[in-house]
Amino acid sequence: MSGEDAPAQQQNAEEQKNQETKKPAEEPKAETKPDSPPASAATEAAAAPAAAEKAPEEEAFTYRSLVLTGYGGYDKVKLQVKKGKPALKAGEVMVRVKMCGLNFADLMARQGLYDRLPSPPVTPGMECSGIIEAVGEEVTDRKVGDKVLALSRCGMWQEVVVVPTTHTFIMPEGMSFEEAAALPVNYITAYMMLFDFGHLRPNQSVLVHMAAGGVGIAATQMCRTVKDVTVFGTASASKHEVITEGGVTHAIDYRTKDYVEEVRKISPKGLDIVLDPLGGSDTHKGYNLLKPMGKLISYGAANMLSGQKKNLIAVAKTWYHQFSVHSLSLIQGNRSVCGFHLGYLDTETELIAQAMDSILGLYRQGKVKPRIDSTFHLEQVGDAMRKMQERNNIGKIVLTTEPMKEEEKKEEAKKDDKKDDKKKDDKKKDDKKKEEGKKEEKKKEEGKKEEKKEEKKEEKKEEKKEEKKEEKKEEKKEEKKEEAKKAEN
Amino acid sequence: MSGEDAPAQQQNAEEQKNQETKKPAEEPKAETKPDSPPASAATEAAAAPAAAEKAPEEEAFTYRSLVLTGYGGYDKVKLQVKKGKPALKAGEVMVRVKMCGLNFADLMARQGLYDRLPSPPVTPGMECSGIIEAVGEEVTDRKVGDKVLALSRCGMWQEVVVVPTTHTFIMPEGMSFEEAAALPVNYITAYMMLFDFGHLRPNQSVLVHMAAGGVGIAATQMCRTVKDVTVFGTASASKHEVITEGGVTHAIDYRTKDYVEEVRKISPKGLDIVLDPLGGSDTHKGYNLLKPMGKLISYGAANMLSGQKKNLIAVAKTWYHQFSVHSLSLIQGNRSVCGFHLGYLDTETELIAQAMDSILGLYRQGKVKPRIDSTFHLEQVGDAMRKMQERNNIGKIVLTTEPMKEEEKKEEAKKDDKKDDKKKDDKKKDDKKKEEGKKEEKKKEEGKKEEKKEEKKEEKKEEKKEEKKEEKKEEKKEEKKEEAKKAEN
Repeated sequence: MSGEDAPAQQQNAEEQKNQETKKPAEEPKAETKPDSPPASAATEAAAAPAAAEKAPEEEAFTYRSLVLTGYGGYDKVKLQVKKGKPALKAGEVMVRVKMCGLNFADLMARQGLYDRLPSPPVTPGMECSGIIEAVGEEVTDRKVGDKVLALSRCGMWQEVVVVPTTHTFIMPEGMSFEEAAALPVNYITAYMMLFDFGHLRPNQSVLVHMAAGGVGIAATQMCRTVKDVTVFGTASASKHEVITEGGVTHAIDYRTKDYVEEVRKISPKGLDIVLDPLGGSDTHKGYNLLKPMGKLISYGAANMLSGQKKNLIAVAKTWYHQFSVHSLSLIQGNRSVCGFHLGYLDTETELIAQAMDSILGLYRQGKVKPRIDSTFHLEQVGDAMRKMQERNNIGKIVLTTEPMKEEEKKEEAKKDDKKDDKKKDDKKKDDKKKEEGKKEEKKKEEGKKEEKKEEKKEEKKEEKKEEKKEEKKEEKKEEKKEEAKKAEN
Repeated sequence: MSGEDAPAQQQNAEEQKNQETKKPAEEPKAETKPDSPPASAATEAAAAPAAAEKAPEEEAFTYRSLVLTGYGGYDKVKLQVKKGKPALKAGEVMVRVKMCGLNFADLMARQGLYDRLPSPPVTPGMECSGIIEAVGEEVTDRKVGDKVLALSRCGMWQEVVVVPTTHTFIMPEGMSFEEAAALPVNYITAYMMLFDFGHLRPNQSVLVHMAAGGVGIAATQMCRTVKDVTVFGTASASKHEVITEGGVTHAIDYRTKDYVEEVRKISPKGLDIVLDPLGGSDTHKGYNLLKPMGKLISYGAANMLSGQKKNLIAVAKTWYHQFSVHSLSLIQGNRSVCGFHLGYLDTETELIAQAMDSILGLYRQGKVKPRIDSTFHLEQVGDAMRKMQERNNIGKIVLTTEPMKEEEKKEEAKKDDKKDDKKKDDKKKDDKKKEEGKKEEKKKEEGKKEEKKEEKKEEKKEEKKEEKKEEKKEEKKEEKKEEAKKAEN
């Protein structure tokens, strides 16, 4: 489903919040009028609670929410109406959301490739901006009306979110809600990678993959805050002008050129820092591009994403080529290999707060500024995800909670035929990919018949690893026993 | 052989320099008088070249040099007399050496476990201090008489060394030759690990293994230059007072306690930085002690050293438990794994110079100061190595090129009986270790009979890896061919 179909498929997701009431999941569906714009309904409910006299305030409180209903294609994210005012615990705030940011992890999550998102049904989204609507007990640093940007493990793609106050940050003067929603994940990621793991210094060189993407642009801007840093940025040719203006020193079209060769031509000794969002064989390439004292920072596996549904060949290939390194190899190369993912840092509020403080400082000085590629309505989340996955964006894609206007809807309706074509296109694309996959398979089968052997080898290796782990555990236990004995003697 | 026997075994090592002369290796031996102190001979030669009228100056120039004659025990490092003035190329300087530093890499090298030392016969030693005696063409930043500390991949354990001027650094005012010889390797290692890879900041926590060793003491002092850094230091109990005075916050006796448990008691969340000179299973332990955004920095495999000769069991065990990590594991843990060894950085003169500049700055401010454990004559190099290997030192062990005085020699001679006992002890120790090794082997054989299976598995795995590498290479070639075809089209 592409986003514009969403309202027609609204479901009341109250059961997620109040499962103990044991209402059948279907029942509340009938309560929402498919033809009335749900956001205005929510607004009415908030503005005129008297209208819902018989129901308690919590019952009358509704808000629109994007919900991942199962793993799969773009249509698995549906726009639903949630009912009931979320309860506020001590230290929490409720935010009326204006904008939400889209991240690669959201695309991975939809395909079931991101283990930090709880099982569906669940609301995705790691960041948003909005206005504080209520504060819980013990909250002293935020008040109703504060404009904030917020960060969370998930659940940000909806009109109302409840988060610990420590996960919110006051928006600087002059920052738009789009910018505020675009900033947290990309800029914290770029900042911590370059300045904590990377320890970027003047005159160094950095490789930024997907330089026109959210993290890519954030990383390029961060590099520019340090003197004489050379940025190699990969992107398709059509984006080179923009990324070069944005600070990339050498733009490389990865579709037509071997980026390793291009880098070596300019920097024969290699690079100080490689930021790697791709995984698989690109991690190996990045490692081999490092200078002595160089740092490879791996922060994703975008190579796993191919097509809108989970592509097992792409996943297996990325997994199979997954980078692994021995400490002796690191010692002999004087190299560092780091892994970063903000999704696994959600409890590190102090680290996050420190990074955000520095980033907002850079924003105030005009040194960094999120570049917005486009804004989509919640109803259009499918289109938004498609654009990101097909790498047609330059900068950040954000979702706005503002409901679509009637005329916009009509226009969208007119495009329906085209959309149908698009769907057909999608199917064609997917079929083509499947076909290509099959062809590739066939070619491999015919050409070498090695693939399966390798897989079997891998399996065997995995089995052996497991065995070895068990054995190691045994050994450790024995060691401990021996040590315990020694301690007794 | 322990060091004091060295003079009796002096060999002329001229053949190393002038192999083309094709003198039999045994012949020059006779030229040196075993009963005359060789250093004074060298001094005579330098002071009174007129005495050697018939020989050209180059021929009359002799100097004492420690030479690794083959891999093995302490007696493999022999004191020899080299003949012939080394030639100076452009950009090089000749240093009359005062003191040389001992490093773990030297011990590894003697056992054949360090691939950065050329094959024997070769002079070991990575650092020294002394006075510039001659400068080559194009040298403008050094002059005869300058007091310098010098750094090189090897060859520093002798009275005269020739190095590129970029490998020398002017000694700060007030620095002793002992300190200057003790500083380069340990302090550059500690500095680059903590401040480049580690990016140490206030309030962080660091684990320093072998905290009473050369790098351990340097790292502790470096940590103290940053506000409120908590240092966990492992050392045997007898050294705790000294390392605590030196800046270790929590001293842990690794011989009687599990350091992982001790760290967790005080710092349940783990550590920001782990410096790991041990390798093997300790690298795994260090990795598991890391906080999010934590860095493990591996810089050696001291666990491979057990006994004075290569202990195959210790080597195999360390190798078998060698740490390897996948990028996805790093991503999920937000961790960094780094490898450092100065021996592989010898061509990075700029990086080294930057680090040395900062370190000498800290020395001038009184913030760092090498702690000298003891000074040995070149003749005593065996004793010096033994002390380091048996971890009986607190701080740096240095060698002085000053010849032993006659009375010292007599005293040493008196100790000879004791020395013989020591030798017997050595043999006993080695035998005991062998015995223990055998017992361990037997126990394992009897208990599980798994060890060999594992080894076989390892072998198979290695074979498979090799196969896979080959296959990958094939794949890469094919990929490139395909890409080349694409580029043509």
